[in-house]
Amino acid sequence: MSKLHYPDLQVCVLAAGKGKRMRSNLPKVLHKVLGRAMIDHVLHTVEALRPKAIAMVTGHASEMVRDHVGQPVNLDWVIQDKQLGTGHAVQQCEQVIRDVRDVLIVCGDTPLLKVETLAMLVDEHRASDSDVTVLTAKPENPFGYGRIVRDSETRVSSIVEEKDATGEQRLINEVSSGIYCVRHEVLFDLLHAIGNTNAQNEYYLPDIVPLALKAGQSVEAVAMDDADEMLGVNDRVHLAHVEDLMQKHIIQDWQRRGVTIEKPDTVRIEAGVKIGIDSVIQAGCYLIGTTEIGDECRVGPNAVLVNAWLDDRVNVYAFSHIHGAAVGSDAVVGPYARLRPEARLDEKVHIGNFVEIKKSVIGEGSKVNHLSYIGDTVMGSNCNVGAGTITCNYDGANKFVTEIGDNVFIGSDTQLVAPVRVSDDATIGAGSTITRNVPEGGLTLSERNPQKYTVNWKRPQKDNG
Amino acid sequence: MSKLHYPDLQVCVLAAGKGKRMRSNLPKVLHKVLGRAMIDHVLHTVEALRPKAIAMVTGHASEMVRDHVGQPVNLDWVIQDKQLGTGHAVQQCEQVIRDVRDVLIVCGDTPLLKVETLAMLVDEHRASDSDVTVLTAKPENPFGYGRIVRDSETRVSSIVEEKDATGEQRLINEVSSGIYCVRHEVLFDLLHAIGNTNAQNEYYLPDIVPLALKAGQSVEAVAMDDADEMLGVNDRVHLAHVEDLMQKHIIQDWQRRGVTIEKPDTVRIEAGVKIGIDSVIQAGCYLIGTTEIGDECRVGPNAVLVNAWLDDRVNVYAFSHIHGAAVGSDAVVGPYARLRPEARLDEKVHIGNFVEIKKSVIGEGSKVNHLSYIGDTVMGSNCNVGAGTITCNYDGANKFVTEIGDNVFIGSDTQLVAPVRVSDDATIGAGSTITRNVPEGGLTLSERNPQKYTVNWKRPQKDNG
Amino acid sequence: MSKLHYPDLQVCVLAAGKGKRMRSNLPKVLHKVLGRAMIDHVLHTVEALRPKAIAMVTGHASEMVRDHVGQPVNLDWVIQDKQLGTGHAVQQCEQVIRDVRDVLIVCGDTPLLKVETLAMLVDEHRASDSDVTVLTAKPENPFGYGRIVRDSETRVSSIVEEKDATGEQRLINEVSSGIYCVRHEVLFDLLHAIGNTNAQNEYYLPDIVPLALKAGQSVEAVAMDDADEMLGVNDRVHLAHVEDLMQKHIIQDWQRRGVTIEKPDTVRIEAGVKIGIDSVIQAGCYLIGTTEIGDECRVGPNAVLVNAWLDDRVNVYAFSHIHGAAVGSDAVVGPYARLRPEARLDEKVHIGNFVEIKKSVIGEGSKVNHLSYIGDTVMGSNCNVGAGTITCNYDGANKFVTEIGDNVFIGSDTQLVAPVRVSDDATIGAGSTITRNVPEGGLTLSERNPQKYTVNWKRPQKDNG
Repeated sequence: MSKLHYPDLQVCVLAAGKGKRMRSNLPKVLHKVLGRAMIDHVLHTVEALRPKAIAMVTGHASEMVRDHVGQPVNLDWVIQDKQLGTGHAVQQCEQVIRDVRDVLIVCGDTPLLKVETLAMLVDEHRASDSDVTVLTAKPENPFGYGRIVRDSETRVSSIVEEKDATGEQRLINEVSSGIYCVRHEVLFDLLHAIGNTNAQNEYYLPDIVPLALKAGQSVEAVAMDDADEMLGVNDRVHLAHVEDLMQKHIIQDWQRRGVTIEKPDTVRIEAGVKIGIDSVIQAGCYLIGTTEIGDECRVGPNAVLVNAWLDDRVNVYAFSHIHGAAVGSDAVVGPYARLRPEARLDEKVHIGNFVEIKKSVIGEGSKVNHLSYIGDTVMGSNCNVGAGTITCNYDGANKFVTEIGDNVFIGSDTQLVAPVRVSDDATIGAGSTITRNVPEGGLTLSERNPQKYTVNWKRPQKDNG
Repeated sequence: MSKLHYPDLQVCVLAAGKGKRMRSNLPKVLHKVLGRAMIDHVLHTVEALRPKAIAMVTGHASEMVRDHVGQPVNLDWVIQDKQLGTGHAVQQCEQVIRDVRDVLIVCGDTPLLKVETLAMLVDEHRASDSDVTVLTAKPENPFGYGRIVRDSETRVSSIVEEKDATGEQRLINEVSSGIYCVRHEVLFDLLHAIGNTNAQNEYYLPDIVPLALKAGQSVEAVAMDDADEMLGVNDRVHLAHVEDLMQKHIIQDWQRRGVTIEKPDTVRIEAGVKIGIDSVIQAGCYLIGTTEIGDECRVGPNAVLVNAWLDDRVNVYAFSHIHGAAVGSDAVVGPYARLRPEARLDEKVHIGNFVEIKKSVIGEGSKVNHLSYIGDTVMGSNCNVGAGTITCNYDGANKFVTEIGDNVFIGSDTQLVAPVRVSDDATIGAGSTITRNVPEGGLTLSERNPQKYTVNWKRPQKDNG
Repeated sequence: MSKLHYPDLQVCVLAAGKGKRMRSNLPKVLHKVLGRAMIDHVLHTVEALRPKAIAMVTGHASEMVRDHVGQPVNLDWVIQDKQLGTGHAVQQCEQVIRDVRDVLIVCGDTPLLKVETLAMLVDEHRASDSDVTVLTAKPENPFGYGRIVRDSETRVSSIVEEKDATGEQRLINEVSSGIYCVRHEVLFDLLHAIGNTNAQNEYYLPDIVPLALKAGQSVEAVAMDDADEMLGVNDRVHLAHVEDLMQKHIIQDWQRRGVTIEKPDTVRIEAGVKIGIDSVIQAGCYLIGTTEIGDECRVGPNAVLVNAWLDDRVNVYAFSHIHGAAVGSDAVVGPYARLRPEARLDEKVHIGNFVEIKKSVIGEGSKVNHLSYIGDTVMGSNCNVGAGTITCNYDGANKFVTEIGDNVFIGSDTQLVAPVRVSDDATIGAGSTITRNVPEGGLTLSERNPQKYTVNWKRPQKDNG
């Protein structure tokens, strides 16, 4: 997909922090934003640069991060045993970096960062033939960020932290994003020169800027267009905020591509979801995973779709829950229909309220409209399944298949004890327990007992004892 | 309702655009805002002026627009075959306009416009004896709109489009809404004088302003109070934004009339809904169509009401879905109750979880609390219907009625095979299949088979084969 | 909890207003904010000061307010028969106040007010040895509030109402909150001196400020940090706004304590709810009352929990409704599961879709996965209950208990007619109506009738008559 390619670029991802303010047993970078861990967002972004290699610095709960990420071919794991600051973190990468012109240093907790922005940073760094280039932003409120101080000729002269800033410097609205592109041949000399004589006794990466200037090297600053991209996540208020921003972009993108989304602030649509034109997503819908929705569908309000697949012109009514199931065109689902993994509805199927379909194929035009459980079933077309029908697919140890032909009518409150087969055109009477195969056509039912009337019977009385 | 009356006013509604950025197979003006097509909002508004006639200019997908709107008596359809600009669109109306003093030109994609604002425009136009009066607005951000340039004596001197505006003109915050009131006797001469020597080769309606000034005619501009009213819809981001604004007004209106609405940003209430005082609408509710809710009701959270009718003091619990049904006072519905069209609950009825009621009358104080399907039924008062009860109303071809008297007790998991009648005071035993009428009082049940115990039976084992 | 103690402070709470703009049959202070009446919020706050006594001034619907509040030991009820203004309201308290240094006057309709802010007011009042101290705020938009006018030495010189303010005074952004701390020995002389020569003929409490100044007493003003705290509720738009602010604080507090909350604007979490770390609350959840959620739980989307209790690592899926029930660790609930009061699930229980559990104990590892009603039941561990199982616990007059042992398998569509006991290791065949106790082990079922096939039977035809 990406046409970018930076074969002489090394990326370092800083993912060693515990994220104490997350108050979590999970390391910070494994917290999810719109269904995907932050570190996955960042890795996905930097991989799109197609760099020579990626070094991932982990520290807190390294094992959990590694287990989560796996082992991409161009990724080196670097352990930072002690958390001695961001400068120290990058230092640890020294051994794994070779044969590149530049090193791009990014944080593992900035999931909104776009690859275009990183590419712009690297390109400008090279165009200006700079030694150190810092990616900056101009947020509405610069409070808390390191300010980019420039001299009279607008060259970067220092990065001043909030607490060290003068009143005048606090008014500067260009701030550091914490992301740097640095020429490889100068980076580690600069890092080794950083000291830790500060309140936290840490080695701070931004200190390479004054060191570079002192050494007569060139320092540039390049501003991103949208300051939101640099937002880092330090607690779960930030997490929700960043997720909200990412969600708004995704939703507006679908709106602009021809999808109507009601009350967009109440809808969740994860990045992997696809939706066809003139479909309407109603309020409170929750569309996640690999869900795909065709054209001219109507979904909701308050429907949940997880890895669902809908063909065109499907109506999914309120409170439906579709997970790992496929729905044919012109089908009608819900309200309160639950389709579970491996349910497959053909065209024009109707699944109604309080109906659960699991690992079953329902043929074209068939209807299961009320209070039923259909599992491990292969049903033909144009069947009508009455209310309260249950496929007894489980004997407490194994699951068995129910086969139902075409054009079958099943009366209400029927139990189909699997394995069992109902042939084409059969009719089954209400209240039957079907344990043997049902022949084609005709009427099959459990013989009914006489309806008995006891005239003298007294209805029980409320016992107040 | 409207006391307005403008018998010498012609309205032109411009509804010819495709709305390319909607990316839709529907013409733009048929897209819905809060459940109603934009063109219906605009028509409803201009009809409230009671003008002499309305000319509707359509172009793209004319047939679809006409089919949607129908044929109001005072509406003339005007076709604009080629989309040569707004000036050209109004020109097409020349033949259908006669015997009026003024022509009011409005757009079909501004659904927030209020009739009071249009009346104000016409009144000011007449009070100032102007030839051309443009309706303006003062939005917070004028970017993208044509600016109203005034001379030193504050008279309108031109309308300058964004792209043609000088830096100074861009700072003007009075902009054109695209809505005009023009004296009939000058309008078409002005329109014929418009040229199309611009980038799009289109005839632009705003060009009548400089032409009028050049001809020594008087041009006035009248500002609307609330700039939101002029918002047009060009894509589905706008659509959602305009809907959100309309929704906020409706919700605040109900709040001020004495309805408590929880988490108003999560609630949808369409314009046709009515709600009584001291009712509480909980988070996530979806109230649409002609729904009417009485006093002191409690609805939600997350209930869906479509053309529903609730009397006073009704409780509708979470995840209930009521469509085309009526609920008597002091009734209790849900959670997870589904009332379908022609369900009618009398006072104090209780309908519980996983229960579907379709085309049935449920008498005062009767209870259907669990997992049941009641269709095509007339039930008396004070009945108790056990869990899992199903009215078998459909034989695969026709629907039949179940009649249930007063004070009937139906045991759990009973099937009532319609047509069938259960008389007053009857008790039906659990698990019965009722195929014949049930006499008054006493106990009726399907004779039960003996409960058989097989001591040596072995439960199946998990087959790992 | 509170370490505050003000034994020589009297609090007066003004709660006499009807709140006409609420358009309600309830007095204003009984309207709820996040599940709790406004007067309860205010009382809870002032009680945390541990003052000598509280005088509550009621007028409109006094009885309703008293019935709601009850009779705390240190609370005196004061009736204001005629609503003659806030000054008149405080006057009515004269008889019940004795032996205190200061009187703190608060409103009954400001539910966001914090006890720390009131303590700060009293402390500053005393530190400055002032006679009258008004609590002020600096809202972004001071419109509508009385402005605090200060003289050249920044001493308070008057409080000017919006309508009486000069253009210059309107620019003052320090406003009165309506909350005062006044030395007891001067308060009532000041109140008796207030006149009612104003448009409403009311006695206004703020008039004590100029009277005090005229009498040479000292008047101080102390500003609260967060102007939102003074927000009063005059209509239901305000009610929703104040609730929204309170909700945001609660949600951000949980986020900072280690709870992930998706789409926080769609979630309701009342003040009494507790949530453990690393739990995830998904979009649209509604958590109210005394609900407690353990660590590492996942709830939602769109689940409703009312006075629910969840142990650790519980999964509650979409559309579940838990009210007054307890769920053991590692249990899985829903989607569409309803747990009613006195349901108690042990560890690792699974309750699935369209299942209702009422007043029942479900033992460790047992599963009730589909379309069932379990009420008044004690179930052992490792049972499997088939789809459509119903405990027939009610005979129309009394409720009876179903006992189920360990390791029981119940076939689908079984009715258990209580009182009845199913012993350990029993298996029950599908479609049984169990009316007698079931012995241990083996297989029990209702003897089944033969499955009958009628070959010549014709399915009914659609009657178009």
